[in-house]
Amino acid sequence: MARARTYSSRPVLTVNLTALADNYQYLASLIGGARMAASIKADAYGLGSDVVGRALYGAGCRTFFVAHAGEGKLLRTAIGAKASIYVLSGNTPQDTAIFFGSKLKPVINSLTQARDWVKAIKDVNHPPRTALHFDTGINRLGIPNEEVDVFANDKALIEALDVDLVMSHLACAGDREHPLNAQQLGKFKMISALMPMVPLSLANTGGIYLGAEYHFKLVRPGIGLYGGKVTNTPDTEGVKPVVELHAPVLQIKTVKKGETIGYNASFTALKDMKIAIVSAGYADGLPVNLSGSDKRIVTSARLGKHRVPVVGRVSMDYTILDITNYKGFVELGGKAVFFGEDLEAQSAHSQMINYEVMTHLGARCRKIYVNE
Amino acid sequence: MARARTYSSRPVLTVNLTALADNYQYLASLIGGARMAASIKADAYGLGSDVVGRALYGAGCRTFFVAHAGEGKLLRTAIGAKASIYVLSGNTPQDTAIFFGSKLKPVINSLTQARDWVKAIKDVNHPPRTALHFDTGINRLGIPNEEVDVFANDKALIEALDVDLVMSHLACAGDREHPLNAQQLGKFKMISALMPMVPLSLANTGGIYLGAEYHFKLVRPGIGLYGGKVTNTPDTEGVKPVVELHAPVLQIKTVKKGETIGYNASFTALKDMKIAIVSAGYADGLPVNLSGSDKRIVTSARLGKHRVPVVGRVSMDYTILDITNYKGFVELGGKAVFFGEDLEAQSAHSQMINYEVMTHLGARCRKIYVNE
Repeated sequence: MARARTYSSRPVLTVNLTALADNYQYLASLIGGARMAASIKADAYGLGSDVVGRALYGAGCRTFFVAHAGEGKLLRTAIGAKASIYVLSGNTPQDTAIFFGSKLKPVINSLTQARDWVKAIKDVNHPPRTALHFDTGINRLGIPNEEVDVFANDKALIEALDVDLVMSHLACAGDREHPLNAQQLGKFKMISALMPMVPLSLANTGGIYLGAEYHFKLVRPGIGLYGGKVTNTPDTEGVKPVVELHAPVLQIKTVKKGETIGYNASFTALKDMKIAIVSAGYADGLPVNLSGSDKRIVTSARLGKHRVPVVGRVSMDYTILDITNYKGFVELGGKAVFFGEDLEAQSAHSQMINYEVMTHLGARCRKIYVNE
Repeated sequence: MARARTYSSRPVLTVNLTALADNYQYLASLIGGARMAASIKADAYGLGSDVVGRALYGAGCRTFFVAHAGEGKLLRTAIGAKASIYVLSGNTPQDTAIFFGSKLKPVINSLTQARDWVKAIKDVNHPPRTALHFDTGINRLGIPNEEVDVFANDKALIEALDVDLVMSHLACAGDREHPLNAQQLGKFKMISALMPMVPLSLANTGGIYLGAEYHFKLVRPGIGLYGGKVTNTPDTEGVKPVVELHAPVLQIKTVKKGETIGYNASFTALKDMKIAIVSAGYADGLPVNLSGSDKRIVTSARLGKHRVPVVGRVSMDYTILDITNYKGFVELGGKAVFFGEDLEAQSAHSQMINYEVMTHLGARCRKIYVNE
């Protein structure tokens, strides 16, 4: 059996840092005089916040958003002291020391968080500045309507918080026609007018595509940087794929007509077949819903220049490909490729969203960062 | 707003080591004189192979199965030199040094792997012993039919491999009535008869429930140890839940009738509501398919002694609960609980299998190991 010179059974997640930087520049080209920030929470959507953070810093990014203080601490170590790192969950009692130690800026989501923070920084020299996050209609985290007046009128509180950003978050930015976009925009303008000297931020990736009036001073894309499409007109989004899952071929075998393949015997060979067992499964983020059964072949992997169907159930560690009609040469250690340009289609087949699939890819794979 | 004494925004995965040990003893009670091994691949199905490995070692387990050499290396460091660790993917060229360095036993899945291994150990003192894995009908990894004769007849090869286990893997063990079970059993007996002195292993968790003739010398459960059900008669499986996801309450707010909640405005308040925003999302393994929309409330979380519906879209970091009718007292930092006894139901609602949900839980959560 022919095979690659050397290979490991461990699957590889390739993260293309050139495509990442290109996506950064592409999104920056859409926002006129606004500044770029990067949402790099959940370990940069599973791609590794240390390397991704440094790459984005190299591309010129100086403002980052994470979800938790612990994520901010790791990012601070990776990118150094100069960038701003905001923590979207805001300050929570147990995490205060991390905010101070790593110079993280809390995103204040409530009067409770505001008052807690003011109390916490009472005797601290040069505490981090903060952002105020107003809920303008997503009804998720953020300062609610009934607390807006307090923030608008309590000058001592605002001064103590040392606010350097006022922000909100869009609920329906991927749908250009959704009426909530304009409603949130209007409400954000009204609230932010109460704090006229502070820079403003509203747009996530989808918000960038909504156009100039959504951009304000700072935009904070996440998924778009990582090559994900977010709108109902994906062809208009000029981002490039960043992530591929490479599953090495561990074995090639023949299956006789009438035999079944994989768990639950869910796929039956209708003729003699040749299959390749590749080393990646749902523990590597390849969804079980991509399995190919007697009812339906759901997806294919790229093998060299061709595509080969996934047959049988995707299992924890292995996936099976039908190479019966494959025109190229398959060698042990050769790579079957998932996601990349197929991310949106394969996510849809998985009955998951592309964000969700992406965040699960990094768990077990070896990450290899490429520039190409 | 009342709140817990202290809390972090980071969600917690609790792993109950007492339940894990109880499940080990329960499964051991079903297998008569056979021995227990543990499948601990994919970081012990996401629960942390170091701590889980040590707990199972403490429960008496001395044989472990992992998928990749790298997983074996980490496990060896955790549990010490005495246990056997088999690597299911077998030896791959790039990983040979890890097999030797960490005394890992390759599961030989093909003649190619057999010959590679024999070549690799040529000048090695006391190389690890090996297992032979025959494919008896799953048509996934494993020695295929056409290679059986070579293994049966090439005494020099078998001697060089120093085989200490002959194994196969069941495709349909969760379905007691599936004809493939008996077919695989028959074939396994036939093949193993060719190597009469070597201990045999066939049963995964499902295989244990199939009964004594499937047990042979060694069984190797995975999901059952971690509390997962595998058969179409789950009530007959006496395992206990091991894993819970605890999402801290970050904010409580009111929503007016007619407003929407969360991304895509997929849930509309039909009356004034009170919601809790809890800190866990799909990056923590909570599937987006658990979202509650206008079409359907899919699931609920446990809050204290009651249950509260998930409303709106599960997002990357946060999930929203309807606490309008909640009878208890909700405090900031209080914990909303997912999975545990609900693992199977919430997995089904997610259109995923329980194994798949479990492997995604450990990625970002802080793991807390409890004994209770």
